[in-house]
Amino acid sequence: MAEKEYTVAILGATGAVGTRLISQLAVSQIPVKQIRLLASARSAGKQLSFKGQSVTVEEATPDSFAGVDLVLASAGGSVSKQLLPAAVAAGAVCIDNTSYWRMNDHVPLVVPEVNAAALANHHGIIANPNCSTIQMVVALEPIRQQFGLHQVIVSTYQAASGAGQSALNELLAEAKAYVNDQPMDAQILPVRGGDNHYPLAFNLLPQIDVFEDDGYTHEEWKMIHETKKIMMNDKNAALPKVTATCVRVPVPISHGETVYFETDQHPTPAELRSVLAKAPGVVVQDDPSHQLYPQPLNATGKRDTFIGRIRADEENPGAYHMWVVSDNLLKGAAWNAVQIGEELVKRDLIYVPAGSAALFQ
Amino acid sequence: MAEKEYTVAILGATGAVGTRLISQLAVSQIPVKQIRLLASARSAGKQLSFKGQSVTVEEATPDSFAGVDLVLASAGGSVSKQLLPAAVAAGAVCIDNTSYWRMNDHVPLVVPEVNAAALANHHGIIANPNCSTIQMVVALEPIRQQFGLHQVIVSTYQAASGAGQSALNELLAEAKAYVNDQPMDAQILPVRGGDNHYPLAFNLLPQIDVFEDDGYTHEEWKMIHETKKIMMNDKNAALPKVTATCVRVPVPISHGETVYFETDQHPTPAELRSVLAKAPGVVVQDDPSHQLYPQPLNATGKRDTFIGRIRADEENPGAYHMWVVSDNLLKGAAWNAVQIGEELVKRDLIYVPAGSAALFQ
Repeated sequence: MAEKEYTVAILGATGAVGTRLISQLAVSQIPVKQIRLLASARSAGKQLSFKGQSVTVEEATPDSFAGVDLVLASAGGSVSKQLLPAAVAAGAVCIDNTSYWRMNDHVPLVVPEVNAAALANHHGIIANPNCSTIQMVVALEPIRQQFGLHQVIVSTYQAASGAGQSALNELLAEAKAYVNDQPMDAQILPVRGGDNHYPLAFNLLPQIDVFEDDGYTHEEWKMIHETKKIMMNDKNAALPKVTATCVRVPVPISHGETVYFETDQHPTPAELRSVLAKAPGVVVQDDPSHQLYPQPLNATGKRDTFIGRIRADEENPGAYHMWVVSDNLLKGAAWNAVQIGEELVKRDLIYVPAGSAALFQ
Repeated sequence: MAEKEYTVAILGATGAVGTRLISQLAVSQIPVKQIRLLASARSAGKQLSFKGQSVTVEEATPDSFAGVDLVLASAGGSVSKQLLPAAVAAGAVCIDNTSYWRMNDHVPLVVPEVNAAALANHHGIIANPNCSTIQMVVALEPIRQQFGLHQVIVSTYQAASGAGQSALNELLAEAKAYVNDQPMDAQILPVRGGDNHYPLAFNLLPQIDVFEDDGYTHEEWKMIHETKKIMMNDKNAALPKVTATCVRVPVPISHGETVYFETDQHPTPAELRSVLAKAPGVVVQDDPSHQLYPQPLNATGKRDTFIGRIRADEENPGAYHMWVVSDNLLKGAAWNAVQIGEELVKRDLIYVPAGSAALFQ
């Protein structure tokens, strides 16, 4: 029997995540019959390369999905809201990088290392979690499985590219201005379209996404609630308490996180290291005697989640620190999405079950 | 009766903290009869300005302190180890910015807003705490006094200048290289004289100071143990548990900290804000609806500790987050030292009690 091949569309193909969706797809185990690159009208006509071939970017419309088997979407929440129901109606399975569909009860929220089994019940839309959530759950789930987990307190150090290519460009333009004694001109961060913009270069912005009524930002809300939805894979385990502070830092790519966590059992740091070293998608970099620990500059361009600074809180038995770094555009976005696609192929799940389209109207 | 006037020596006058000791002293309430600027032989002969007058830098030696009433020291731990006993023997009261004497039982460790009373028992050397510790205890002590405090978990976002002027210069040189597509040349950070050096520009370094055997860095150790020594001011209160992760970030000046804390009572965030707004040395900047929160670029050059992002952990009653930013070279170093000097003047404590010198031999 000939191997199945799929027509794959990339929605938002010209963005920071979109370009990486193309390159991750090119080296993936997804058999691609044809690729379609979709973006806004502004980008239509651009030429991008896929496996050495030039592909013309087309404008994304509700009619773009005829004959498409799989959509990898990263064009913003409003585009996913508008276009993914049309894609599902046309029979395409969608893996969405935006936050729009993540908490929908009909949408599995998947990190393959943690809850690939949730894919079995998909209805045409599968959501990729928030970048800062993905790397944290990759690090926490092996610990939770082995030792139990009841509390997580995370502080993030998030890269500019988490807000898109234009935010990354803004950081570099600001840095160039600063080192040349020119004024910095902030137009995008902390939140595109917000009332106030502040420089990120040589600064720290303790706001990612908009504020909720309770004083948390929506990014913090996502880390709390997405983590619980992903960890619901294991119906028998109690969900941990999770709380977060998210801070944007002047780094182009790769997020850092200090993760403080309390386990049910009380392993030694060596036992934690041993469990993490065997965990899928994890690389332990933890040797203080050789000053070895994860750094964004080293993690960028890699698919793994890097973990170091693992140590016990001596005053609080069963509590630990770790430092987690991963490329927010790869494991935090494009690679996780392509990895979901590979799982769908492996499980022969690239089809839209009957009746699915009505769920998203 | 004529006001007392003092001869003040600045030890390490040419460094990032030293130059700020000079400018903070110039605007302080310490009546200065004469100023002496001391530094290494390499800097001797340089001219610096104090209150508009040019002063020649002299080489610091054990004989430099004859006739000196007050020494403000920031020339490194080994210099303080060597020279401060000689200064005390010569009758000079020393306020030391280095870590060398901080945990000595005969040395008060003082943040004036928290434990100025500890000055009464000084023996000639008074220690200024670590920069990241100072701003945290300024923020925590009013909360502790009002509501009790039993647990603190802090993650720091520390500026390059915490490692001195040369580290700050290195960050800026690296940033200039990076934006011009040149390789970055790290020679100092994370730890001067260490085996490995890594770029800080556009990166994060989860190591500040050397590693202890338990996997904590010495910076983290300082935040834990100095906080407890400072909070010992109040003999009746139990000391909180404290744990920390310290990360160097590509910011020139002003440290950020995410501080998670558990109180004995369960105030509302509004009650916390109200207590902090009345606290000495604190400015509350906490209005999400106007995107108002502390930022290093805004805090730099100011003496206050800025606090925002105050909110409750809804899943853990009595636990809260706050975001604390302060200029590490001012409140974290030079201003705190000069402020101690003002307290000594006010309390008429600028003298070395008999028998003190023997304590430091």
